[in-house]
Amino acid sequence: MKGNLTVSTDRIAADIAALAEITEPERPWTRRSFTPMFDRGRDWLRDAFAAAGLEVSTDAGGNLIGRRPGAVSGLGTILIGSHSDTVPDGGRFDGIAGVITALEIARALDERGISLRHDLAVVDFLAEEVSGFGVSCIGSRAMAGVMPPEWLTRQWEGRSLRDAIAAVGGAPAQLGTPLSAPLKAYLELHIEQGTVLERAGIDIGLVGAIAGITRIEITVTGRPDHAGTTPMDARADALVAAAGLVTAVRDEASRPRAGRHFTATVGEFEIAPNAANVIPGHVRMLIDARAEQRPDMEAFIAWAQALKAPGVSLDIRVISDNPPVPMDPGLLAVLARAADDAGISQRPMTSGAGHDAAYMARLGPAAMVFVPSKDGRSHTAEEWTETIEIALGAEVMARTVIEIDKEGE
Amino acid sequence: MKGNLTVSTDRIAADIAALAEITEPERPWTRRSFTPMFDRGRDWLRDAFAAAGLEVSTDAGGNLIGRRPGAVSGLGTILIGSHSDTVPDGGRFDGIAGVITALEIARALDERGISLRHDLAVVDFLAEEVSGFGVSCIGSRAMAGVMPPEWLTRQWEGRSLRDAIAAVGGAPAQLGTPLSAPLKAYLELHIEQGTVLERAGIDIGLVGAIAGITRIEITVTGRPDHAGTTPMDARADALVAAAGLVTAVRDEASRPRAGRHFTATVGEFEIAPNAANVIPGHVRMLIDARAEQRPDMEAFIAWAQALKAPGVSLDIRVISDNPPVPMDPGLLAVLARAADDAGISQRPMTSGAGHDAAYMARLGPAAMVFVPSKDGRSHTAEEWTETIEIALGAEVMARTVIEIDKEGE
Repeated sequence: MKGNLTVSTDRIAADIAALAEITEPERPWTRRSFTPMFDRGRDWLRDAFAAAGLEVSTDAGGNLIGRRPGAVSGLGTILIGSHSDTVPDGGRFDGIAGVITALEIARALDERGISLRHDLAVVDFLAEEVSGFGVSCIGSRAMAGVMPPEWLTRQWEGRSLRDAIAAVGGAPAQLGTPLSAPLKAYLELHIEQGTVLERAGIDIGLVGAIAGITRIEITVTGRPDHAGTTPMDARADALVAAAGLVTAVRDEASRPRAGRHFTATVGEFEIAPNAANVIPGHVRMLIDARAEQRPDMEAFIAWAQALKAPGVSLDIRVISDNPPVPMDPGLLAVLARAADDAGISQRPMTSGAGHDAAYMARLGPAAMVFVPSKDGRSHTAEEWTETIEIALGAEVMARTVIEIDKEGE
Repeated sequence: MKGNLTVSTDRIAADIAALAEITEPERPWTRRSFTPMFDRGRDWLRDAFAAAGLEVSTDAGGNLIGRRPGAVSGLGTILIGSHSDTVPDGGRFDGIAGVITALEIARALDERGISLRHDLAVVDFLAEEVSGFGVSCIGSRAMAGVMPPEWLTRQWEGRSLRDAIAAVGGAPAQLGTPLSAPLKAYLELHIEQGTVLERAGIDIGLVGAIAGITRIEITVTGRPDHAGTTPMDARADALVAAAGLVTAVRDEASRPRAGRHFTATVGEFEIAPNAANVIPGHVRMLIDARAEQRPDMEAFIAWAQALKAPGVSLDIRVISDNPPVPMDPGLLAVLARAADDAGISQRPMTSGAGHDAAYMARLGPAAMVFVPSKDGRSHTAEEWTETIEIALGAEVMARTVIEIDKEGE
């Protein structure tokens, strides 16, 4: 197909362009949660939701919701969306593409005169990205009833998170219980933030699982001797030891796992004393490991905990350890059929990044659709996805919404 | 021997203990140049020099000098000394042991009724360590007439180096020409700051050369992709590449060089963006290489400049490149004979660290005597050398002073 879509590429392009205008002017594209620029984006979305005929409200967790009531009450809500906030110096598509897709699906249904039996709701989750409060997925955790209550006292720029959620229209006093309405399904379109689709030349990815994320901190302690006077064979160089560990982590992460998604990255790495003429005595490194399948992660943790390095001491700690979140197989099957019917190529994949969908999966069937990211770039001004690529994902989601609405008819 | 010394271990111990008292109280042992604590140390030294019958003055470069006139005028000066300043959180011996040794030699000569034909001068060089002005060996460079004049405008804590040198009694307007008196010889005792003597169980090291120091900066540029979504085989991880370089530098520096001193150390190492969920896109590393023999350094520079790393780009720059400074063979021969005569074990060695002696070698014959450092530690509160170890070095130097004073008689 790719010629005759239910959704409108023009409207998707216009909306993404309009939201891109709302950015810190010196740092395109920046619209961080809990900043005035985010509020301006929300104002634009509120108007756009209303213009699409949606009933606009903000839930207790500060999520903006546009509701399209269904013909039959009590069947539960089909929820579609993502997030409109960005990281600093972020892009125009991460999150935004999913919110605009959800809005466009509501408009497209209206345009085609399609009424649904289920309620349809478009959502812009609050603070999916790490905000100034230092945590992520605030809105979706809140909707799932799993936001740690102590987070409300976190401070940023003279405000508590409690006050900041209230300021966007949330009701922090009512947090802690999940969304009361039954969730029929949650669907989220997101840019891939990787190169799998682009390299394979495939239109969309159907996300079978959101990878588990485990963080392992390794502290290497050697001896900070004089760089000029200490013979090469009398050193306890923490950097040399840590370099071997970085290589080992890359090698262990790279070994074949029969196609199962697995990554491990040393993203934080600091040495001390970090002085030109002193042998490094200390290194702190943080491994970020992601696995589609829990046994792969368990094997990696065991491998990491057994690491040794000659002449230095290692302190190895698992800092956080979250299991993978499987997406709903039934929903994935409907998405796959819808793609096939529309002539849109698809492949199963795993999300290496965390998403609001991981929290929505606690409330009901959830699934994600990935669209290609040019060169895999994200969280950067160069982040790019063609409008048609988003529209193909939106088309599959629109057809899926129509399909699952018929279930149990 | 080791029983019947010309020099006094008691006086050496007492002097080192007295100077150790003069420290920033919360950070033993800290007495940085251009701080009030350094001035207090200088006051103590000035009194001690005077008490030893020396004629005390401060030269244009801010070096404290205690002069013991010789019986024959115009023969030139035998200069002995080191520095009394420390690094922050430094030790009680680095530099200080050499100044106290010089003072003790003057006292021991008096005690034994030995008059010299040559002038003898005891020196405490200004700011051998990197001070707040960010440079080292200010006093000895100034005495040798090679301090870059632009250094005088460097600023620290609201003062120029020019004003700071004047404040310790120097005459910055007269800098730029070397010490006018001919230098008969320069001798400096210093702690080894390494483990060669300790491991070999040898009393003193006779320094044949001060190693050349070359600094090479390597910038690694990869691509800062998402740590969770970018497959292991689609990465340009600057840290993984840099880890391979760190290992390669260690291996290249460690290969046998027929006993010639060579070290290479990556002491500075920073990654960017240094975020848990981002593949490192950028690494800057600084190699500090030291060679006793210039051809070894030239080979190392050529090796480093040819480094490659897969999938990333490297920018490799030689930041500074100073050749080794040989010590005077004649002076070393006298030192070796003096040690042998006294039954003090000695071995030739190379100084991996820079020293004031490197600048004195521009004015005349210069040599250094190393004494053991416990565990090779220096620039730390744990720095330690036994008094008897210093005394054995001082004994060899005292005998050498007496010996060279006779030359040309």
